[in-house]
Amino acid sequence: MAWRYALVIDPAAADDARTDFADTLTEIDPAAPALSVGELSTQRGDGIFESIGVVDGHPQEMNAHLERLAHSARLCDLPAPHLEQWRQAIAQVADAAEPGESVIKLILSRGVEHGPTPTAWVTLAPAPDNTRARERGIRVVTLDRGMDSGAPARAPWLLLGAKTLSYAVNMAAIREAKRRGADDAVFVTSDGFVLEGPTSSVLLRFGDRFVTPEPGSGILHGTTQVSLFDHLAERGFATAYEELPVAALTEADAAWLVSSVRLAAPISAIDDRGLPIDAEFTASLNRYLLSPRD
Amino acid sequence: MAWRYALVIDPAAADDARTDFADTLTEIDPAAPALSVGELSTQRGDGIFESIGVVDGHPQEMNAHLERLAHSARLCDLPAPHLEQWRQAIAQVADAAEPGESVIKLILSRGVEHGPTPTAWVTLAPAPDNTRARERGIRVVTLDRGMDSGAPARAPWLLLGAKTLSYAVNMAAIREAKRRGADDAVFVTSDGFVLEGPTSSVLLRFGDRFVTPEPGSGILHGTTQVSLFDHLAERGFATAYEELPVAALTEADAAWLVSSVRLAAPISAIDDRGLPIDAEFTASLNRYLLSPRD
Repeated sequence: MAWRYALVIDPAAADDARTDFADTLTEIDPAAPALSVGELSTQRGDGIFESIGVVDGHPQEMNAHLERLAHSARLCDLPAPHLEQWRQAIAQVADAAEPGESVIKLILSRGVEHGPTPTAWVTLAPAPDNTRARERGIRVVTLDRGMDSGAPARAPWLLLGAKTLSYAVNMAAIREAKRRGADDAVFVTSDGFVLEGPTSSVLLRFGDRFVTPEPGSGILHGTTQVSLFDHLAERGFATAYEELPVAALTEADAAWLVSSVRLAAPISAIDDRGLPIDAEFTASLNRYLLSPRD
Repeated sequence: MAWRYALVIDPAAADDARTDFADTLTEIDPAAPALSVGELSTQRGDGIFESIGVVDGHPQEMNAHLERLAHSARLCDLPAPHLEQWRQAIAQVADAAEPGESVIKLILSRGVEHGPTPTAWVTLAPAPDNTRARERGIRVVTLDRGMDSGAPARAPWLLLGAKTLSYAVNMAAIREAKRRGADDAVFVTSDGFVLEGPTSSVLLRFGDRFVTPEPGSGILHGTTQVSLFDHLAERGFATAYEELPVAALTEADAAWLVSSVRLAAPISAIDDRGLPIDAEFTASLNRYLLSPRD
């Protein structure tokens, strides 16, 4: 992936008295050294992020991503991001996008160790070609996340629900899935409930009803899932958040992993058990997801 | 903390045919930009690290740390670090240490996203003054790690036992401890067994017997704990690895959190319940830990 554009944000320069943040945004060469070895993002995965899909230069669901960034900041005791400053940064970065699909990443780090302020930056890169996953589907394996479904409520320091930079386990889960001949994973609780993919939300269809796990159950509340629920409701389908036992995955009429960049990827097999793919319906979801969304 | 010295290692240049790695080690300004925004360490906490105590220029237990780095690399599917290259890097960095206590950090990252090789660097900084923790002790709280004691065996993708850069939860646990008026935390399993501190190992004394949790129970095998076990055995004490129920923490005659830089910090209270401190005995442990160790 060639990084196309990057800028550094100065969060310390943000205050409500200003409306123009241009001078707090500094374009950098995305391939050049930009961060010091003292960065806590790199030393301890101590920060938060968002990945925003960009279609023909339009950042999709920008405000939903910014709200989740602010939510993650609260869970991690980071200073609240100044959302207008981030909006202007995203607009500047999106201007550099080529036609087609790109991805914008927002990163808010706790900063340089013992430093006074967070560091923050925004990058742009072309999106990988996800046609195959969207059309032919993905094979997934279920992987135990090690925690029971009560953990998020009793242990907020586990940061379940925050999109932190500490993604080593998420990456290891995808490697484990590939080792098993699959494409991706679905995390489940130790007491047998569906959680999420390492970088996606789970969406299940039962007849004309679409369900996803409760966001309070220790998962990220997916921006793409929320957007799809709105779209499905408009098309007359029922949608619901539910506690989903693992068996629901194979009992569903169809299942998807949905995320901001790969969009809706139909699941063709779960733990080697085949699942039907509705190619036409999936294409309709992805047409919606590729249309400009705010 | 002022970073005193840093160098970048080129892991791609390491092979068994060479004995001198000087030209694969590049000194950098530790305060200057050195890492690109594409670094997976910073984007996903995707890498591993070690913190080595340095006393009067001598890196303590260097080989134990390098062996653990190699162990973490295996668990994370990272290329094996070339240990002689790292030894020469540590020696070069240690030469820049002032008298007294310092800390050397080793970082091995998966590299720049979609790049061909890992990135790696070593830093040196003066250690914080830990006199108060060593002499007066620390107050700790127990915090649920969310996982039961069977998780490490059944879910290796959770990387329990690897010292990854994904430390956001460890940092959040220390913040939670401070919010409760304590200094540090002890993680426990959801089924009630003692694990470790967020950046330390737990050591308990029962009479003339010293025990620590089983390293297979989802914790890091502490280099300082191993070194102290050798020392205690030489002094005629018994040492053992055991499954320790949470109640053992308050039943112990004394307890410590031990780590490479703070060394042996006696625990003066666990969840507001006072624990006796043996100042003289603790001082003897720290004298040993401050003596040159290989």
